[in-house]
Amino acid sequence: MTILIRGGTIVTAEHSFRADVLCAGGTIAAIGPDLAAPHGTTIVDAGEALVIPGGIDPHTHMELPFMGTVASEDFYTGTAAGLAGGTTTIIDFVIPGPTESPLAAYHIWRARAEKAAADYSFHVAITSWSDQVHTEMGILARDHGVNSFKHFMAYKNAIMVDDGILLNSFARALELGAIPTVHAENGEAVFHLQRRLLAQGITGPEGHALSRPPAVEAEAATRAIAMAGVIGAPLYIVHVSTEGATSAIARARASGQRVFGEVLAQHLVIDESVYRNPDFGFAAAHVMSPPFRAKHHQDALWSGLASGQLQTTATDHCCFCAPQKAAGADDFTLIPNGTGGIEDRMSILWHHGVAQGRLTPQEFVQITSTNAAKIFNLHPRKGAIAPGADADLVVWDPAARRRISARTHHQNVDFNVFEGMEVQGVARHTIASGHLVFTEGDLRARRGAGRYIDRPCFAPLMQTIATRNALTQPAATPRHPPA
Amino acid sequence: MTILIRGGTIVTAEHSFRADVLCAGGTIAAIGPDLAAPHGTTIVDAGEALVIPGGIDPHTHMELPFMGTVASEDFYTGTAAGLAGGTTTIIDFVIPGPTESPLAAYHIWRARAEKAAADYSFHVAITSWSDQVHTEMGILARDHGVNSFKHFMAYKNAIMVDDGILLNSFARALELGAIPTVHAENGEAVFHLQRRLLAQGITGPEGHALSRPPAVEAEAATRAIAMAGVIGAPLYIVHVSTEGATSAIARARASGQRVFGEVLAQHLVIDESVYRNPDFGFAAAHVMSPPFRAKHHQDALWSGLASGQLQTTATDHCCFCAPQKAAGADDFTLIPNGTGGIEDRMSILWHHGVAQGRLTPQEFVQITSTNAAKIFNLHPRKGAIAPGADADLVVWDPAARRRISARTHHQNVDFNVFEGMEVQGVARHTIASGHLVFTEGDLRARRGAGRYIDRPCFAPLMQTIATRNALTQPAATPRHPPA
Amino acid sequence: MTILIRGGTIVTAEHSFRADVLCAGGTIAAIGPDLAAPHGTTIVDAGEALVIPGGIDPHTHMELPFMGTVASEDFYTGTAAGLAGGTTTIIDFVIPGPTESPLAAYHIWRARAEKAAADYSFHVAITSWSDQVHTEMGILARDHGVNSFKHFMAYKNAIMVDDGILLNSFARALELGAIPTVHAENGEAVFHLQRRLLAQGITGPEGHALSRPPAVEAEAATRAIAMAGVIGAPLYIVHVSTEGATSAIARARASGQRVFGEVLAQHLVIDESVYRNPDFGFAAAHVMSPPFRAKHHQDALWSGLASGQLQTTATDHCCFCAPQKAAGADDFTLIPNGTGGIEDRMSILWHHGVAQGRLTPQEFVQITSTNAAKIFNLHPRKGAIAPGADADLVVWDPAARRRISARTHHQNVDFNVFEGMEVQGVARHTIASGHLVFTEGDLRARRGAGRYIDRPCFAPLMQTIATRNALTQPAATPRHPPA
Amino acid sequence: MTILIRGGTIVTAEHSFRADVLCAGGTIAAIGPDLAAPHGTTIVDAGEALVIPGGIDPHTHMELPFMGTVASEDFYTGTAAGLAGGTTTIIDFVIPGPTESPLAAYHIWRARAEKAAADYSFHVAITSWSDQVHTEMGILARDHGVNSFKHFMAYKNAIMVDDGILLNSFARALELGAIPTVHAENGEAVFHLQRRLLAQGITGPEGHALSRPPAVEAEAATRAIAMAGVIGAPLYIVHVSTEGATSAIARARASGQRVFGEVLAQHLVIDESVYRNPDFGFAAAHVMSPPFRAKHHQDALWSGLASGQLQTTATDHCCFCAPQKAAGADDFTLIPNGTGGIEDRMSILWHHGVAQGRLTPQEFVQITSTNAAKIFNLHPRKGAIAPGADADLVVWDPAARRRISARTHHQNVDFNVFEGMEVQGVARHTIASGHLVFTEGDLRARRGAGRYIDRPCFAPLMQTIATRNALTQPAATPRHPPA
Repeated sequence: MTILIRGGTIVTAEHSFRADVLCAGGTIAAIGPDLAAPHGTTIVDAGEALVIPGGIDPHTHMELPFMGTVASEDFYTGTAAGLAGGTTTIIDFVIPGPTESPLAAYHIWRARAEKAAADYSFHVAITSWSDQVHTEMGILARDHGVNSFKHFMAYKNAIMVDDGILLNSFARALELGAIPTVHAENGEAVFHLQRRLLAQGITGPEGHALSRPPAVEAEAATRAIAMAGVIGAPLYIVHVSTEGATSAIARARASGQRVFGEVLAQHLVIDESVYRNPDFGFAAAHVMSPPFRAKHHQDALWSGLASGQLQTTATDHCCFCAPQKAAGADDFTLIPNGTGGIEDRMSILWHHGVAQGRLTPQEFVQITSTNAAKIFNLHPRKGAIAPGADADLVVWDPAARRRISARTHHQNVDFNVFEGMEVQGVARHTIASGHLVFTEGDLRARRGAGRYIDRPCFAPLMQTIATRNALTQPAATPRHPPA
Repeated sequence: MTILIRGGTIVTAEHSFRADVLCAGGTIAAIGPDLAAPHGTTIVDAGEALVIPGGIDPHTHMELPFMGTVASEDFYTGTAAGLAGGTTTIIDFVIPGPTESPLAAYHIWRARAEKAAADYSFHVAITSWSDQVHTEMGILARDHGVNSFKHFMAYKNAIMVDDGILLNSFARALELGAIPTVHAENGEAVFHLQRRLLAQGITGPEGHALSRPPAVEAEAATRAIAMAGVIGAPLYIVHVSTEGATSAIARARASGQRVFGEVLAQHLVIDESVYRNPDFGFAAAHVMSPPFRAKHHQDALWSGLASGQLQTTATDHCCFCAPQKAAGADDFTLIPNGTGGIEDRMSILWHHGVAQGRLTPQEFVQITSTNAAKIFNLHPRKGAIAPGADADLVVWDPAARRRISARTHHQNVDFNVFEGMEVQGVARHTIASGHLVFTEGDLRARRGAGRYIDRPCFAPLMQTIATRNALTQPAATPRHPPA
Repeated sequence: MTILIRGGTIVTAEHSFRADVLCAGGTIAAIGPDLAAPHGTTIVDAGEALVIPGGIDPHTHMELPFMGTVASEDFYTGTAAGLAGGTTTIIDFVIPGPTESPLAAYHIWRARAEKAAADYSFHVAITSWSDQVHTEMGILARDHGVNSFKHFMAYKNAIMVDDGILLNSFARALELGAIPTVHAENGEAVFHLQRRLLAQGITGPEGHALSRPPAVEAEAATRAIAMAGVIGAPLYIVHVSTEGATSAIARARASGQRVFGEVLAQHLVIDESVYRNPDFGFAAAHVMSPPFRAKHHQDALWSGLASGQLQTTATDHCCFCAPQKAAGADDFTLIPNGTGGIEDRMSILWHHGVAQGRLTPQEFVQITSTNAAKIFNLHPRKGAIAPGADADLVVWDPAARRRISARTHHQNVDFNVFEGMEVQGVARHTIASGHLVFTEGDLRARRGAGRYIDRPCFAPLMQTIATRNALTQPAATPRHPPA
Repeated sequence: MTILIRGGTIVTAEHSFRADVLCAGGTIAAIGPDLAAPHGTTIVDAGEALVIPGGIDPHTHMELPFMGTVASEDFYTGTAAGLAGGTTTIIDFVIPGPTESPLAAYHIWRARAEKAAADYSFHVAITSWSDQVHTEMGILARDHGVNSFKHFMAYKNAIMVDDGILLNSFARALELGAIPTVHAENGEAVFHLQRRLLAQGITGPEGHALSRPPAVEAEAATRAIAMAGVIGAPLYIVHVSTEGATSAIARARASGQRVFGEVLAQHLVIDESVYRNPDFGFAAAHVMSPPFRAKHHQDALWSGLASGQLQTTATDHCCFCAPQKAAGADDFTLIPNGTGGIEDRMSILWHHGVAQGRLTPQEFVQITSTNAAKIFNLHPRKGAIAPGADADLVVWDPAARRRISARTHHQNVDFNVFEGMEVQGVARHTIASGHLVFTEGDLRARRGAGRYIDRPCFAPLMQTIATRNALTQPAATPRHPPA
């Protein structure tokens, strides 16, 4: 399929300029003014709109088995919804149980994902430690294009790992040229507070937020940073939701550590008051971890993105419908954790970011695709508009407005946390791998069209870190023995 | 025994003024100008010297069984050495093994301490968790005068506790009106780094410092503070040695938490270069945890004391002689951890603090006795000069100088980390419980003269915290159930 | 007059204990259990109440000529109102115009203050620089008991001074053993914002707050700290109202500087929403500088007090009645700046501080009297309960409640910023210089009973700073000249 | 002239890839594998080397009249030396005296710069305030391509401006879509300390550093940030040399301000010990403002660059020879301030940055050219490798080494602050505007070949800021007047 995008303003992480884009064979063939359209080319008229790299959501959980149920969104419906919103690539998570093989789990997830409508890749979670895990990390990194490993510091009695495992796994990742990532919440504290709250008779969704106060996240972020720091490893912290964790990242960076932070679109605009809603269904639909926070945290997150201390945006897209959420009607600890967002992230970021003067268009592109592509070594195949790059493009109308609603969204879930919000900034056309998959409201996603994307190790940053570590090794002191 | 201290300048935590002090029956009977001396009174001529409250060392380990050996200093020799240096009270530690009863251990330590020459009390370490431990904490607090419980975040595979235990024990202490304390080092990180260093062939004492970098302490301090914070408990952090931990304490205090920090005299003046000494014996003699640090940390500690962010000074007095230290000749992880200091703390603080213009005389008294007395609820019996207070007093010559040396010290250990240092500020006379136990270089310590000191719970600060916690309890949201 | 306070609990900065207090000849004669009452002694029954040192308000402006009018409260009415609330000493300000002699102004203020009903002292403002000012600072310090000099960084075109003057005056104060103080707001920024807001048509009291945003205070505090820092001087910052200035102080202290901060009772409990009140009179009545702030700043101030990073509380008592405030009806920059508070400070601090569990009773005493007494070298004559100290005492009922209102207060102003607030913690009896001046609601203030209090230079802290500075002088490098 | 760079690895701010580059007509004509060379094309063989954008030095002072003399390097010699080191564009400064017209000064500087061998542009300094200055800023911005205005907070009695001028000028720049920049040192403090040091007999170059301690810079940076913040303006701080100023920038960015920082190559590797050299000539040759600092500041600067909190590197190239420096032989305040560096900046950054594992190659490009091009709106004409961009390119040998020396450098000054340093990373060929101006050590600079480069206002960031400011304007409160 050949597509010519005519007449738009290309916006990249670096700059903006008017040019046409020709897509052929799944990649970008040419960029320039007044490009000729080969015979049979589909013309997409960009008009006064922008042309941006397709969004990358580096944090999703399609059809995840979790808390006794399975996320309602599968790899097909979820990636299709993403396309409708301008996201053309996801990085999902392989999450083995503590007694399971990461490599075996990887293959299970690969099979699940074959139905995906958009390109995908996988972080692999390390949920236990053994020689086998050590070995399989190597196989995954070297043979399967996995350059990032995830660690849960929460979910005690399930997939939580302790600091010893963090250190072993971080060290292994460093040696493989892969980057460790963490879900930063202190699982022991959450567990303690859950027991205490339930004992006090606080059983509703408000207990969810109370059991995971900001300090619980800031602590874990600080700890993970320290663990990475003592062995010279980089670190990527998923879903940073608090001023405290943002500050911890900034402090680490100011002291020379290579630490990155991801923000969810949801945390940028929704606050903790949702948990005190008297309607259980409404409150429970917002239960996710980390929970929504007091409003002042939002300012810290926006500033973190604008200042470059936080680098990426994601959704942690993990959907559960009302009947699933009802499992926790009498005990908030049983409400499946997760909210959706993949379809709306780009609009949320444009509306509340660019249109409010918080972000430049370049910064919007950086935090919706380019930075994730660089950190996870997909760049410049993804996250860039350049000849040879994958033809993952969005014709983005910066002035158009739409109203978000579960009644109209493409996501396979019965609730939308942004319900009723009117946003400015809309995907008019989405092109994925050179195919026009969404155009003027018409979603043409194809089951199985998505491809698994290898992410090789030793991205430029990892090479730099290896150089640094080699140059700063400690040495033994020559010494005469005790008399 | 009746003693009249004549002609000195009394220096308290609050101010300085010229007055005589009459001691009778073990307590201070009168303070004022030109007091009359009852018949039989011993006159101590203070001349131009100062009269200060006897020092309180809130962190000692006399005759501690540790790392396969036993600390060389026993309760008699150690407290006697303290008296020679102006310290009249210690708070030592009861440390049960992970499978032992805290209450039983308490009785063992009480028996050991009967030989003490000066007053003493005990923090009790919580090294495991069970209903029995929960119960015994109550017994210790209510019936045995224990208002502080210690937790080791280091020493994996020995007495280290995890965050779940911290939370359970902190919550229990809070409910009892006792204060939790922590040794803040991340034991998992230390263990990981020890293994790595040994594998790299770094087996000497320099490995000790490398395995416990500043980040390992700052992390644990931050974590303990977070654990205390989420349940509203106060916290006391022993032997703060780094800028990072000091900052963590300051941040916590600035956000309203009640956190206290203790500094060892040794960390204020000795730096990490000692571990690179080619003489194993010298280097090993400095092995303690946390280790000595790069010089810039010392500035942070001094400023922490002067600004009131750090409140107390101690020594972690825990002595091992050269043959004991030699156990780690081939493996730094086997060197018994500990250094001495009880005899020299007061002089170190005066010389490097007051005489250098870093501290006022009032601040010197605060950090050598009064603050510890207040935090651990010994005040105003200890740490004060007032009618009715224990007659624990030192006639302190602020101008006299002495040279510190293991050859002349009274401590039962063959090394002194301050060896050769000439200090200004010397205890001329020490009075403990109304007895003149050290005078002009003559140590008259009496075995068994020391008394166990009860420390009741619910000090004023603890009452305030209880009020605050009661007023800020979360409440459940009234809610109609899911349809 | 001889008074015996019987049966109360004495609360000092250090501790609490039950004892009687005997006052005779204007000072405290004895403290102890069951004191005998000499013939003719007035018995004050403290019942279950507390006995605390009389409050010291280190920041008042009685009968100040300012902004074209004169503060409505004179030295008599103002100090009398203070006695009714438990404040027995004030430190007011001598403020010469930029072309006036500080010494001459001092004498003018001394004359004004002769009518005072309570003890008083004076900071002297330095509002210009010349050899004469330099000389007169020495005369004031050495001959007139002035150990603190004030500097306004705001009020451009009036009494504002630039950094050159700050440095000259700080250096002079340091050499005299006096402490410099500053009103920290960037006057240039205020002026610029005032012009801009008026040009935008914002002429009402809301413009007052908008023209003095938090950054304007934080900046000036940071700058004054830097100026003090480069010459080794201490610094006291009056009316700290923002998180930013509090942080600046904490950072300075953490780096070893001796910096102190004062908080007004008003800023602790009133927020900026008052300026958006549609009633001009209400809004204008709250116009003071610095203005009231967003609520989150209050938390920072409370924590600053509890953690010891802020040391004193005051009121900046400077009253203007509605007709005076009306001068700015069409232009907020013409509203006389100032609010009252001297009568209510102690109750505000007890109610919102101690009764809410934010402060211990000891901390309450420290920040209402003792710390100010120490910093300004009135201690232990003031701010202490000890034999020989001035008999300035309050029998404080910690449980009694009263409702604050301009209709009932003793202050000579027609508005009360705490109007309608019911507070717990009430002065039942106030004793000043050994006289019972307020008892069970009956104010017996006597015009002219107050005395001028000398405050000698070289308080203990200043001696310590002098020692430090002498030890850290830079030296010239021996050098051969250029060829 | 047509040039084909064959066989290198292109390194941009974003990524690295192998491709040829064809330059024609002064711009980049094509990028791609195996490009054909038109007839007459000069072939530059990149071999295993890198191809990077020509360096931009955003801070130079060629032939500056300053402190009674004129900088030895003129626009020709200085830009030529830059070309030899891989820098192809400079932004110099127009600096009118306080009584001079900025516009007239601009024309004077334009005339001086006509001899330049490389492209250049100008920041214009605002050194006084008047309606005329206000008007001329508009003319410069709209008609002369000036989008940045500089302000000196130091140099009292010369070009220093006060906060009132900062605010007026910042506000004017904001309205014009230009960015204000500052030299951040508190000139009053410097002046005060200079007088004091001279009075103490410290007259040598060590006095230079003592008179400008780190706090003096941190203060001014903090103040400039606050001034920008209160009116919503962005800010660029030149030659950040301290941890304190770096922290101030990071704090501002974390609170949402748009603040940028520039670092000089010299400050990254030279420390304050140079001023204590007994050789006056050596010490004086290092006199520049801000001065060199204690070593720990260097870590903060490197981390600032790596973390993105500091964005650009420059040299403040301002050369004075030994006879000029000798003017201050008896008084350090008379030593002309300035050091050279334009020729060595790129090598210093590669050697100490990339080769030490502190920076990725991408980050090297960002901080040596791309970021400056973006901030000052030269991008993508400069700082990029893309079709249509100026053909300013360097074939950079990342492995080659050279020894820096005044004996061999091309700079017109008799001293090199990097004397004797062997650096890895060398410019093998430099192409400027499509001409091969330096090749294998042969400098072919042409007098007058450089062009003045217009920098239009309202770069993308400035548009975003304008949007934000418009959306957050304060409003007046509707109000009924006082009765």
